[in-house]
Amino acid sequence: MNYKLIFKLIGNVLRIEALFMLFPLAVSFIYGGGDHPAFLWSILILAAAGTILAKLNPKNKNFRTRDAFVVAGFSWIMLSLFGALPFYFSGYFNSFIDCVFESISGFSTTGSSVLTNVEVLPKGILFWRSFSHWIGGMGILVFIIAVMPSINASSVNLLRAESTGPSPDKIVPKIRETARIMYTIYFAMTVILIILLKIAGLSIFDSFTNAFSVAGTGGFSNTNASIGGYNNIVAEIIMTVFMFLFGINFSLYFTLFGRKFTKFANDIELKIYLGIVITAILIITINISGLYNGIWEALRHSSFQVTSIISTTGFATTDFNLWPTLSKSVLIFLMFTGCCAGSTGGGIKLIRFIILFRAAKVELGKIFHPGSVKTVSINGKKVSNDIVSKTALFFFIYFAIFFVSLLLISIENKDIVSSATAVIASLSNVGPGLGIVGPTGNYATFSSFSKIVLSFCMIAGRLEFFPLLVLFTPHAWKR
Amino acid sequence: MNYKLIFKLIGNVLRIEALFMLFPLAVSFIYGGGDHPAFLWSILILAAAGTILAKLNPKNKNFRTRDAFVVAGFSWIMLSLFGALPFYFSGYFNSFIDCVFESISGFSTTGSSVLTNVEVLPKGILFWRSFSHWIGGMGILVFIIAVMPSINASSVNLLRAESTGPSPDKIVPKIRETARIMYTIYFAMTVILIILLKIAGLSIFDSFTNAFSVAGTGGFSNTNASIGGYNNIVAEIIMTVFMFLFGINFSLYFTLFGRKFTKFANDIELKIYLGIVITAILIITINISGLYNGIWEALRHSSFQVTSIISTTGFATTDFNLWPTLSKSVLIFLMFTGCCAGSTGGGIKLIRFIILFRAAKVELGKIFHPGSVKTVSINGKKVSNDIVSKTALFFFIYFAIFFVSLLLISIENKDIVSSATAVIASLSNVGPGLGIVGPTGNYATFSSFSKIVLSFCMIAGRLEFFPLLVLFTPHAWKR
Repeated sequence: MNYKLIFKLIGNVLRIEALFMLFPLAVSFIYGGGDHPAFLWSILILAAAGTILAKLNPKNKNFRTRDAFVVAGFSWIMLSLFGALPFYFSGYFNSFIDCVFESISGFSTTGSSVLTNVEVLPKGILFWRSFSHWIGGMGILVFIIAVMPSINASSVNLLRAESTGPSPDKIVPKIRETARIMYTIYFAMTVILIILLKIAGLSIFDSFTNAFSVAGTGGFSNTNASIGGYNNIVAEIIMTVFMFLFGINFSLYFTLFGRKFTKFANDIELKIYLGIVITAILIITINISGLYNGIWEALRHSSFQVTSIISTTGFATTDFNLWPTLSKSVLIFLMFTGCCAGSTGGGIKLIRFIILFRAAKVELGKIFHPGSVKTVSINGKKVSNDIVSKTALFFFIYFAIFFVSLLLISIENKDIVSSATAVIASLSNVGPGLGIVGPTGNYATFSSFSKIVLSFCMIAGRLEFFPLLVLFTPHAWKR
Repeated sequence: MNYKLIFKLIGNVLRIEALFMLFPLAVSFIYGGGDHPAFLWSILILAAAGTILAKLNPKNKNFRTRDAFVVAGFSWIMLSLFGALPFYFSGYFNSFIDCVFESISGFSTTGSSVLTNVEVLPKGILFWRSFSHWIGGMGILVFIIAVMPSINASSVNLLRAESTGPSPDKIVPKIRETARIMYTIYFAMTVILIILLKIAGLSIFDSFTNAFSVAGTGGFSNTNASIGGYNNIVAEIIMTVFMFLFGINFSLYFTLFGRKFTKFANDIELKIYLGIVITAILIITINISGLYNGIWEALRHSSFQVTSIISTTGFATTDFNLWPTLSKSVLIFLMFTGCCAGSTGGGIKLIRFIILFRAAKVELGKIFHPGSVKTVSINGKKVSNDIVSKTALFFFIYFAIFFVSLLLISIENKDIVSSATAVIASLSNVGPGLGIVGPTGNYATFSSFSKIVLSFCMIAGRLEFFPLLVLFTPHAWKR
């Protein structure tokens, strides 16, 4: 392993994090609330640690696949550990583990909270929670690639390690250009959302923080009743639309700039995404209509909840814990699937389901035509057997980690629905589950041990397993 | 498709079923109970339908892969439909759907019942329920291969379609010989079990029926409290051992006859099976020790329940619904894994987990050695990429069917734990789940629609999906 290179990059991650923390620092000065020392100290520590590491001078500056995976896993752990410092210094959290959980939940865009009352938090801390979603959504390494000239062409491996989906790749030949385009689209969409939320009547602070949460498909909010706390239908509708939009593959938006509208409209993952969202909304609307004042209110809650869950944002406008079993089953199913690859959302990703459905069909066809050389193709392009195998393995790893984690958090004997959905909601970066971790609940009552297990699930889910799993292999610790 | 060949074989399946029904007929004559007309009528119908179909004279007598898969799917549906006739004629069931559910539950070795009180059933019916487990355990097609001289060498595809595991194959070069050896081992072990249960103090009738249930890893019992109803510790211990034994790959027993003891002892799936059983017993014993009178009673219930669930028998000596979450999570995990390939048990099968774990390890290794050509091997033999892909796909299909079925049975709004575990327990051919389908519960309150969905799951699980899924492809209906 090229440790010097790895640590140098982590140093840069920490320095960038220090820069990012200037925003909540400014917020805490503007709004008061007394949380500015928490940020000042954190920035000092980050800058110092970051500068020392960034001074390393590796001979070889190429990120091989192995370095990229290891650095992605390490960076995210460091980002989260240091990102927990403001929470810790603020004094609003019970333990450092709680701070780390909240921080990992932020960067991984999960949005699960250990806090029972977020409304007492100062504005700077609230801002940092939501802002961490925004940073984690598109990825810190992608950001570094976009802004740092010293990272060279081999950093395509970094992009791959941090991006989501079975075969993330460049959208333009140059890797830095790719990263810049991604962040530009991300930034522009976020700005539009902020403006719309402000117009809808949210305060400027709530417009910013909620836009960050939506853009990163995170789910932290400033009220204990999540988005339901605003009671603002226009803002809800705007968020419903944007949660859906942030669940789409960003490279698809790029095709729009090239006026390749048919490519956009014919994308199979987008079609399936739209189809699933519409079907789920219809099923749930009918299923819950008796619980609300008429079909329109049911439609409003069901469309908000469906886009919130499938995009793995995790916002809520109502307590879906009280919904009938069919609606709950649909939501659990959406937690597993998640949205599109290359978006800021989590979950298994729809493209993986499409690949495996087609692979299963090919396999069934082989029973009738044993000599057949039919293969899986997506959007007219052949998918290699290697990608199909990896995709199927991804599925297996997801469920393996799910079961091991479920067994581990079952030790503290919470009910099985809460335990199981807590793990799914963490692995898929959704946030709320059912039972005590439902939309009106939180993760406060879990033991420290369970919080560590769930934290692992959140990072593992965000990085799609491999970058975190490599850290557990002996290879990663050999020179 | 070679329909003449397919229907001829189905005719033979029905004729064999008629012969098998002579046993419960004899039982009903011996014990009285008035259920003999139910069997007489059923045998008449089976013999007539079977003889007509068996008279077909196909030109080509080779079972190609496609014919074998289609015939396996069809045979099992026919076997179950006709096997439901005695239940229907007996008058103890509410509807024909209930009879079919019970019959499918029997042949698929699931053991879920729609009856709320089995203790009022006449002996002939009770015998048929348990005997259907025994027939379904090793498989009706394997039986036909063993006894019918007209089935030729190409029937290896039949064996593959009905046997369990990722790559079932002959244990001796001749296919008929293989089938005979399998049934001989199966028969001998069943006889030993009957004798031991009789010695332990069960009645001759209970010894037979419970031995059938254990051998087929089914789970139907003659008391409403399952095996707990006998309150016979010796019988419980004997069953614990035999449920474990019937969960082992039968071809491994054959190695014992060749005195290949090291091959037996070094089999990785057997080692993992033993390891998981011991670990699960220990965890649960500690976890439930407070609920029982001391550690020995806890150990007794935990070892019975662990072998019962992992072998997918589904017997119970206590209500594990009342156990702590950790124990319940362990049991749910065992429902998914199931036991060894080539056994009479259900579930995903441990060998598939082993293959995929190793494949994941190989994949992780490739990050460090991109040019590596390392592959997965089991017991020193290389596993082809094709088998690895198929195994991973199996996993995907299992969960796809799980989710679709869960959504369908959620419609009737039973609680989510009961709904989800009902589907798992059906797909893995276990029988009891948690909640209302727990060990003291039953499937009586489910709607006919849900019962059809669960019936589909039971057959799909028993045949490991492909033979049933092919029936839903247009290929299967083309000439």
